[in-house]
Amino acid sequence: MPAWGQTPFGRIAVGRTEEIYHVGTFKAALAEFVSVLILVFAGEGSGMAFNKLTDDGSTTPAGVIMAALAHGFALFVGVAVSANISGGHVNPAVTFGAFIGGNITLFRLIAYWIGQLLGATVACLLLKFSTHGLTTSAFAVSSGVSVWNAFVFEIVMTFGLVYTVYATAIDPNKGNVGILAPLSIGLVLAANILAGGAFDGASMNPAVSFGPALVSWDWKNHWVYWAGPLIGGGIAGIVYESVFISRTHDPLISSSEI
Amino acid sequence: MPAWGQTPFGRIAVGRTEEIYHVGTFKAALAEFVSVLILVFAGEGSGMAFNKLTDDGSTTPAGVIMAALAHGFALFVGVAVSANISGGHVNPAVTFGAFIGGNITLFRLIAYWIGQLLGATVACLLLKFSTHGLTTSAFAVSSGVSVWNAFVFEIVMTFGLVYTVYATAIDPNKGNVGILAPLSIGLVLAANILAGGAFDGASMNPAVSFGPALVSWDWKNHWVYWAGPLIGGGIAGIVYESVFISRTHDPLISSSEI
Amino acid sequence: MPAWGQTPFGRIAVGRTEEIYHVGTFKAALAEFVSVLILVFAGEGSGMAFNKLTDDGSTTPAGVIMAALAHGFALFVGVAVSANISGGHVNPAVTFGAFIGGNITLFRLIAYWIGQLLGATVACLLLKFSTHGLTTSAFAVSSGVSVWNAFVFEIVMTFGLVYTVYATAIDPNKGNVGILAPLSIGLVLAANILAGGAFDGASMNPAVSFGPALVSWDWKNHWVYWAGPLIGGGIAGIVYESVFISRTHDPLISSSEI
Amino acid sequence: MPAWGQTPFGRIAVGRTEEIYHVGTFKAALAEFVSVLILVFAGEGSGMAFNKLTDDGSTTPAGVIMAALAHGFALFVGVAVSANISGGHVNPAVTFGAFIGGNITLFRLIAYWIGQLLGATVACLLLKFSTHGLTTSAFAVSSGVSVWNAFVFEIVMTFGLVYTVYATAIDPNKGNVGILAPLSIGLVLAANILAGGAFDGASMNPAVSFGPALVSWDWKNHWVYWAGPLIGGGIAGIVYESVFISRTHDPLISSSEI
Repeated sequence: MPAWGQTPFGRIAVGRTEEIYHVGTFKAALAEFVSVLILVFAGEGSGMAFNKLTDDGSTTPAGVIMAALAHGFALFVGVAVSANISGGHVNPAVTFGAFIGGNITLFRLIAYWIGQLLGATVACLLLKFSTHGLTTSAFAVSSGVSVWNAFVFEIVMTFGLVYTVYATAIDPNKGNVGILAPLSIGLVLAANILAGGAFDGASMNPAVSFGPALVSWDWKNHWVYWAGPLIGGGIAGIVYESVFISRTHDPLISSSEI
Repeated sequence: MPAWGQTPFGRIAVGRTEEIYHVGTFKAALAEFVSVLILVFAGEGSGMAFNKLTDDGSTTPAGVIMAALAHGFALFVGVAVSANISGGHVNPAVTFGAFIGGNITLFRLIAYWIGQLLGATVACLLLKFSTHGLTTSAFAVSSGVSVWNAFVFEIVMTFGLVYTVYATAIDPNKGNVGILAPLSIGLVLAANILAGGAFDGASMNPAVSFGPALVSWDWKNHWVYWAGPLIGGGIAGIVYESVFISRTHDPLISSSEI
Repeated sequence: MPAWGQTPFGRIAVGRTEEIYHVGTFKAALAEFVSVLILVFAGEGSGMAFNKLTDDGSTTPAGVIMAALAHGFALFVGVAVSANISGGHVNPAVTFGAFIGGNITLFRLIAYWIGQLLGATVACLLLKFSTHGLTTSAFAVSSGVSVWNAFVFEIVMTFGLVYTVYATAIDPNKGNVGILAPLSIGLVLAANILAGGAFDGASMNPAVSFGPALVSWDWKNHWVYWAGPLIGGGIAGIVYESVFISRTHDPLISSSEI
Repeated sequence: MPAWGQTPFGRIAVGRTEEIYHVGTFKAALAEFVSVLILVFAGEGSGMAFNKLTDDGSTTPAGVIMAALAHGFALFVGVAVSANISGGHVNPAVTFGAFIGGNITLFRLIAYWIGQLLGATVACLLLKFSTHGLTTSAFAVSSGVSVWNAFVFEIVMTFGLVYTVYATAIDPNKGNVGILAPLSIGLVLAANILAGGAFDGASMNPAVSFGPALVSWDWKNHWVYWAGPLIGGGIAGIVYESVFISRTHDPLISSSEI
């Protein structure tokens, strides 16, 4: 039995003792690890490729397209390969949104976050070696944009991302999610990068920002890439749960694997 | 019971009294609001990103590709996340085409239009803040192209878009629409932008043009981006309904959520 | 009853008297007309857009990407919207390959070809007006490439295209084609344009070449864009039918709508 | 009855006498031949197109996007058209990973490898003729990157590719693979090329590297493009089989066509 905490938005599961030894949670965290590794290796790697091809030139439209396609395609794949194992979060903000909506326990949130952050870190270490030591550039706020602009950018974009996750993957009114969920999630990321990439890098994913920041040890404005996605993702979870989902059953049980 | 008006193209529903209090219409309009917000934030945002990256340079092939992918991917997502709630119109011209074909009531058309126009406006206001005040450029007719050229461009492109909506999402001869409808609708938009983007911006969607025009207060030739899509979408609805759909049942009832 | 002609590759249907008055064939030809119109308007239009954006500059990698995505996305849509009506050929070479394999009658082949060639022509006329009279450039063999090189290029690329049509849409061993067929057909076109676009325009479709040639009245090497696709498509039909399909039933009846 | 060899990772099938005469294996190898031909013709062809368009200029972001889309789209198609015949490997490293996991016999591995290497070779010969004799450039390690960097790059990228194959196509816990498997496999290739293309060409597929190397007779560092993919694919097979698949039945029988 989970222990529940009362919140304004309904019950939130804070843990299930027996889950600690549950091999399913470990496997799910491992699946999240691999999916984030695939995402960050391709996504961050495409940025490093752009820097190499242009001798660290400033971003161009073609560079933004590279980043959008690399992240969008890789997130599609990351969600597709982990959907049946972990629910295909591949993003601490999505995990947070699912937790806020009462769909996973606090224990599972922690396990997923560890897997996701480790996956991003290992991807950046592998990139650093494979590229003969090039810098894994951290996400940064562009000149002419304030940190508060970037903050709102991340909130709005992650709202769209997590709203999409809810509508296509979590909503129990949907049938089999199949291809629709991973493709929607991957392509909303790509679309948002085409808009936000030039302004603040368009992370929408704390793990994707954490790996490069850790390996290049560049933490400037790093809080924006946690606070923005978590707030945007949380709002999306609350809005979607309260407006569009009429649950007649316990969410934790019915969607325990999301 | 709906009230019907006789038109050359069959009965058109002009309203159902009980629908005004129907929570379904409000939720559906809210879903349209969010989907258009996602579409315009990514689509208009990609244009503002191009302007920032090139210091307001003239459009290049890479810029057209950015716009096409951002709009196409985001429309795919917008349709996918609202398909089960509002029917996934995400476009006043599609709503108009569905109305002309007798698939929705006038009341629902008005509710959707309000949601769609508000979504586009809020997206542009958020973009204006997030980008530190950059201009949300309105759609414009390129030099060397007359307003009548643009008018025909919008008619033909929106005909293709709404024909695609009918063939993949509305046609009752199709089974479960699943992934085919949103992907077809998103990619026909992207393909048409690759052709028309250089000539008139390739809107095919009055809401997508309305938001930037309102926020930047630039109404030059704005009528083209309403008249073209509504005429093109209306023709598509009439052609598809009369040639390819042999209904043996009342459309409003069988496809009331389209 | 169809009349059959004996060929080395099995029976070929040469016509069914009653089909002439069959409204199904007319509707199917009309669906082919609209789908080719969508394809050529976006595809040829993207080339005209590139010419406008670059002041008729020489082709660049970004220009090839524009052409590949416009044609690939639009063909996906063209196949998706006509699949349930006409079988989604959208290409005289595919219709020819289906005829060679004994899947459609000669009468239907002629009706489809007329619809397809008219669709391409109308698309080019609409483009000419919408772009204020720009040239609808005909497909051409690049400098440094002989007409025989282009001939082989078209044969190999169209072999891949029609082989894909057979494997995903015609093969009766497949179940419901759904999304797989249109997406495979659209993306094999896009992939081949990324290779062949720089050498001979990468048509793989006589209708796509015919429309621009007629409207710009430029017939140089035009035969290559008929002979290559028809030969490549024919070979694909013969290979796939003879190696991978073991029919235990009459193809014309079992797949009369392909 | 297959003969089995004991390995640390479970039983490996080393051959079935009766399979030598089994027409299914020949047809499957032929399907692999065609799919690799489609992949290499579009993929290598896009690189030759870039060289032609830029007069053998150095790689740009647009060039990497061309290569990523051409390979990704064509692999999607290659997997889609052969999935029901050969299992849709289209890559000796995938075949090796399936063999390591005990899903196919050694005989089938050899037949597939021959088909795959022949397909790549024929594609390059056709490209050489069609392009009027241009060089089919072999995959190469970029300047500033050591051969060991490239080796790790190939291992990591192919791990992601074959892990995706296992998760979407081989895992018996999945239902009907349909569109998810080919699209995931195609897009993980595209995403990885956007990262690795600038550093070592991003092959992940010994056949894709073998064809151009043979036809242009350039074997420099060629071992990297065999050892990296085979090791990365083998690790993926072992990890996925041991962690995520709990088989309660004999894999060779249950997934003999993978």
